[in-house]
Amino acid sequence: MDKNRLEAFSDGILAIIITIMVLDLKVPANPTWQNYVEEYPVFISYALSFVLVGLYWSTHHHLFHGVQKVDNKVLWMNMFALFWQSLIPFATATMGSSKFASLTVMVYALVLVFCTLSHMLLVNSLIKLHGLHSNFSTDVNRDRNKGNLTLAINLIAIFVAYMDFPRIAFLIIVLTALKWFVPNRIMDKI
Amino acid sequence: MDKNRLEAFSDGILAIIITIMVLDLKVPANPTWQNYVEEYPVFISYALSFVLVGLYWSTHHHLFHGVQKVDNKVLWMNMFALFWQSLIPFATATMGSSKFASLTVMVYALVLVFCTLSHMLLVNSLIKLHGLHSNFSTDVNRDRNKGNLTLAINLIAIFVAYMDFPRIAFLIIVLTALKWFVPNRIMDKI
Amino acid sequence: MDKNRLEAFSDGILAIIITIMVLDLKVPANPTWQNYVEEYPVFISYALSFVLVGLYWSTHHHLFHGVQKVDNKVLWMNMFALFWQSLIPFATATMGSSKFASLTVMVYALVLVFCTLSHMLLVNSLIKLHGLHSNFSTDVNRDRNKGNLTLAINLIAIFVAYMDFPRIAFLIIVLTALKWFVPNRIMDKI
Amino acid sequence: MDKNRLEAFSDGILAIIITIMVLDLKVPANPTWQNYVEEYPVFISYALSFVLVGLYWSTHHHLFHGVQKVDNKVLWMNMFALFWQSLIPFATATMGSSKFASLTVMVYALVLVFCTLSHMLLVNSLIKLHGLHSNFSTDVNRDRNKGNLTLAINLIAIFVAYMDFPRIAFLIIVLTALKWFVPNRIMDKI
Repeated sequence: MDKNRLEAFSDGILAIIITIMVLDLKVPANPTWQNYVEEYPVFISYALSFVLVGLYWSTHHHLFHGVQKVDNKVLWMNMFALFWQSLIPFATATMGSSKFASLTVMVYALVLVFCTLSHMLLVNSLIKLHGLHSNFSTDVNRDRNKGNLTLAINLIAIFVAYMDFPRIAFLIIVLTALKWFVPNRIMDKI
Repeated sequence: MDKNRLEAFSDGILAIIITIMVLDLKVPANPTWQNYVEEYPVFISYALSFVLVGLYWSTHHHLFHGVQKVDNKVLWMNMFALFWQSLIPFATATMGSSKFASLTVMVYALVLVFCTLSHMLLVNSLIKLHGLHSNFSTDVNRDRNKGNLTLAINLIAIFVAYMDFPRIAFLIIVLTALKWFVPNRIMDKI
Repeated sequence: MDKNRLEAFSDGILAIIITIMVLDLKVPANPTWQNYVEEYPVFISYALSFVLVGLYWSTHHHLFHGVQKVDNKVLWMNMFALFWQSLIPFATATMGSSKFASLTVMVYALVLVFCTLSHMLLVNSLIKLHGLHSNFSTDVNRDRNKGNLTLAINLIAIFVAYMDFPRIAFLIIVLTALKWFVPNRIMDKI
Repeated sequence: MDKNRLEAFSDGILAIIITIMVLDLKVPANPTWQNYVEEYPVFISYALSFVLVGLYWSTHHHLFHGVQKVDNKVLWMNMFALFWQSLIPFATATMGSSKFASLTVMVYALVLVFCTLSHMLLVNSLIKLHGLHSNFSTDVNRDRNKGNLTLAINLIAIFVAYMDFPRIAFLIIVLTALKWFVPNRIMDKI
């Protein structure tokens, strides 16, 4: 089993996921400024999803950098994580075109919850394969908290959207993205 | 002729096949829970096809791992297999949007039959090129039964769908996917 | 300038061209056998274009196998060839959905003429770069006749479609594809 | 952090951006010559965007050829540049389908302005990483004027489109593309 082909295949899928979302950006044939402005939920949903898929790619990249070997289980955990990420364009288009209807924001956050959970399963299968006390596992374990935090924030977002505050829920999800750009030393203090 | 570029091209096509299917996931602009639930044939068709294309990729990966050389005939057998796999998004969308109409499940299973047959032709052309008694051919021959089993199950699924039990036919196709996740030693006992 | 990245980028574009054509395969939501059969122009147009793009990829692969170096002019000749190939999905969809209307078959053959011409310009720029008497140029010159033949057949197809025999024109284009599968020694005799 | 995977991911995204634009080329099901001719804004918008994305790829290729190392900031500046480039298919489709409505040409040029600005930020982050007096930075600084010129021309195009001369604005944007094909020594004289 070859780590490089797994990485290349994942990169290909992520590159397509991130790009086909653009097919859902649409304005009427002879648009006015107002048409563009009214479509803002579509544009900012696209922007958020672009950043989130970029984050998955970057996290995947960092994760596999230290990987020494892969097996069949890792391959399928990776496919499982890609499956949930492949639903992001759908969830994004629905959220954008419905202008943040509560239900669509809940579904969007739910897809992100499954993306995070399946990524955790992938990490676990890699740790199991490399041994709990390997260098790989020690490095990876340090990032666990970020994953748990993402999970918690997305669950809160689901609840807030369920309470019928979808735009606040959207802003909460934006936080999960911003969190990754905060340098580690500041995160540690918090 | 270069094995690596053939693998990379196949990976690219499979990555696109697996991802563009998501473009067929659609709910109304202001969806209710019921809208999502009613679309379940679209979602589980997508999930099954995602797993099946993932399996093709994984099988392709294993097959070419042992390949020493490729020639023009292998290149075109590979293209022929990719052609049938490229019809999976079409067959999936039709099956999902018609909510498992018998005919669409038959067509879906038929496409899978041709995917399996063309994969067998690809394997044969590789065996012929490497020699019947090469290490490559010995390894590959061990997996023959899985291919034959897939073929048989899909033909049964076509018949069951033709008898107007499309949902049972769908479940039978799900079995062909699950079969690959059963460890070899358990398969051997059966 | 790096030959490998040029090849990888071309492969990526060709993989997408060959795969997005499948998005134009459509049957009504609850199809009958007749619906599938009536769509046969869409399916065989797709099949032909799949083979033709596969041939371009394979030809590109063979061409660049012997390439020693690339420059800016080669890069843009390559982009120019990819541009015309990128119009194949459009020409295919139009020809299929209009059920071989004469004009659409003419446009399809015209796109193929430009694909062939731009490929010839790419070959010329590579020959100029490697020197007329290099090994690369000697090898490549042997394939010139195939290119000229493709050009001639497609021009005939345009004329036949213009005379309002679009289905015969389509069959003539199929010949340009089949020609490549005839072994060289038989071609030489003819 | 690995330069090669960043290049491969960028290439994948650019290959998809350049190719999915073709999905917006459409003529009626039974087209006449007039239908094709009337769609000329769609075709030449596509052609221009194909060349511009080709230029971004080629520029990216040249830029990263000399790159020694990448860090997290470079990765995100690269994602930011890809984000703006990913909006090109949307801006192209809008401009083409509205037959060069002033507003859509302004939006197209605006997207190009952000593509140029974000590319400059990427270049800056790479210069900062390599040191201002490194070979990399010296080489890259020589191309600065081309970037500034692109920016200036696109801003002029926005103004001209705003004055309700969208077709002249379009021709001005075509100039930004042609400029890159003029050899450097002629550019220097001007």
